[in-house]
Amino acid sequence: MPLKAIVLLSGGLDSTTTLAIAQNEGFETLTLSFDYGQRHRVELDRARTIAEQMGAVEHRVVTVDLRQFGASALTDTIEVPTHRSAGEITSGIPITYVPARNTIFLSYALACAEVMECGDIFIGINAIDYSGYPDCRPEYIAAFEKVANLATRIGVEGARKLKIHTPLIQMTKAQIIKKGLDLGVNHSLTHSCYDPDENGIACGVCDSCLLRLKGFKEAGALDPLKYRA
Amino acid sequence: MPLKAIVLLSGGLDSTTTLAIAQNEGFETLTLSFDYGQRHRVELDRARTIAEQMGAVEHRVVTVDLRQFGASALTDTIEVPTHRSAGEITSGIPITYVPARNTIFLSYALACAEVMECGDIFIGINAIDYSGYPDCRPEYIAAFEKVANLATRIGVEGARKLKIHTPLIQMTKAQIIKKGLDLGVNHSLTHSCYDPDENGIACGVCDSCLLRLKGFKEAGALDPLKYRA
Repeated sequence: MPLKAIVLLSGGLDSTTTLAIAQNEGFETLTLSFDYGQRHRVELDRARTIAEQMGAVEHRVVTVDLRQFGASALTDTIEVPTHRSAGEITSGIPITYVPARNTIFLSYALACAEVMECGDIFIGINAIDYSGYPDCRPEYIAAFEKVANLATRIGVEGARKLKIHTPLIQMTKAQIIKKGLDLGVNHSLTHSCYDPDENGIACGVCDSCLLRLKGFKEAGALDPLKYRA
Repeated sequence: MPLKAIVLLSGGLDSTTTLAIAQNEGFETLTLSFDYGQRHRVELDRARTIAEQMGAVEHRVVTVDLRQFGASALTDTIEVPTHRSAGEITSGIPITYVPARNTIFLSYALACAEVMECGDIFIGINAIDYSGYPDCRPEYIAAFEKVANLATRIGVEGARKLKIHTPLIQMTKAQIIKKGLDLGVNHSLTHSCYDPDENGIACGVCDSCLLRLKGFKEAGALDPLKYRA
């Protein structure tokens, strides 16, 4: 019987590639998405479609109200920055930072792992393009893995240690795109934009769109998405 | 100006005593309660009353849907055990265990700490009476504190390290009750029962009531609560 893994799936390019990697490593995958009042709610639909089309055995959506903690352009009404250079995008803690978001998401994944008796969690975080997020660094993940093994029945009593997999953590966006192409990821299903229109069409000028477009260019590949700008 | 601390407040005896300890140490307190679909919802009202009466500067309630992760008598419809001996209550992982609950709660407290620029979090967990919960042990808290400092702006850039305070972790229930009496805690406001009736009257026979009653007896004090049994 294949081992089960939980994959955090936002419907973006990184988490979708992470799902493909987990499946390529032989895991039976359960995908977990978070409805945290994000402005770009189209990603929840994309995540569900991706989970179905890629054959996840189960897809769950957890509602998490992060808006009460404010302080982020992804959930508040403050403006998403546009047309920034790569240097501007990757320096400092970004305006799109949501406080403790990855810790909250990984905690839910841990609850899910405990209930499903599943010892592997995959998360598509990346320390290269988003160096400003403190909770995207390898030392953070190592510390959380320790918490996971101390906090849970499966960690304390299980035959194997609980593992947090971060296969993309040291990859550039171009490498992630190439990896996805190698594994047959359908990039047209993935979503990156911080500020899509009501039809889900990407803006092409927010930090996330700019990093994606730059990644495709560097990978020598064509981004199948439509953009309004 | 006094330092601010976040105190996780369930409205129970332990968390209320923890709030009193934080205030006694000079912290200005912000209390945080969780609505996680618990069967004993009376505790949310008690928590609010306690926060007000004890002068917390702010009280927040975070909605967390743990029911989707099942596996616990506190959120499911499985029966709460009654009339058990102290030995039965404290051996093994209890039926009232909620998967990864403390990790989820501490993650929200961390988000709150980040937004409020507050470096101190108090949680009234206890390793003596609830030895069966893996996430009530000192090594678990130490590991989470490390995560907290790696995960957040305040941990990475702040002048002081973020600290998770667990003042009750090595106390017996009787010691917690005595400490509360010393600090003027109004025990009649606190709630412990896993299975209160519609008026919030405690059953007197669930594990939590039994531990509370045993604690008051050992402390040589009278429990001001009414019980139906």
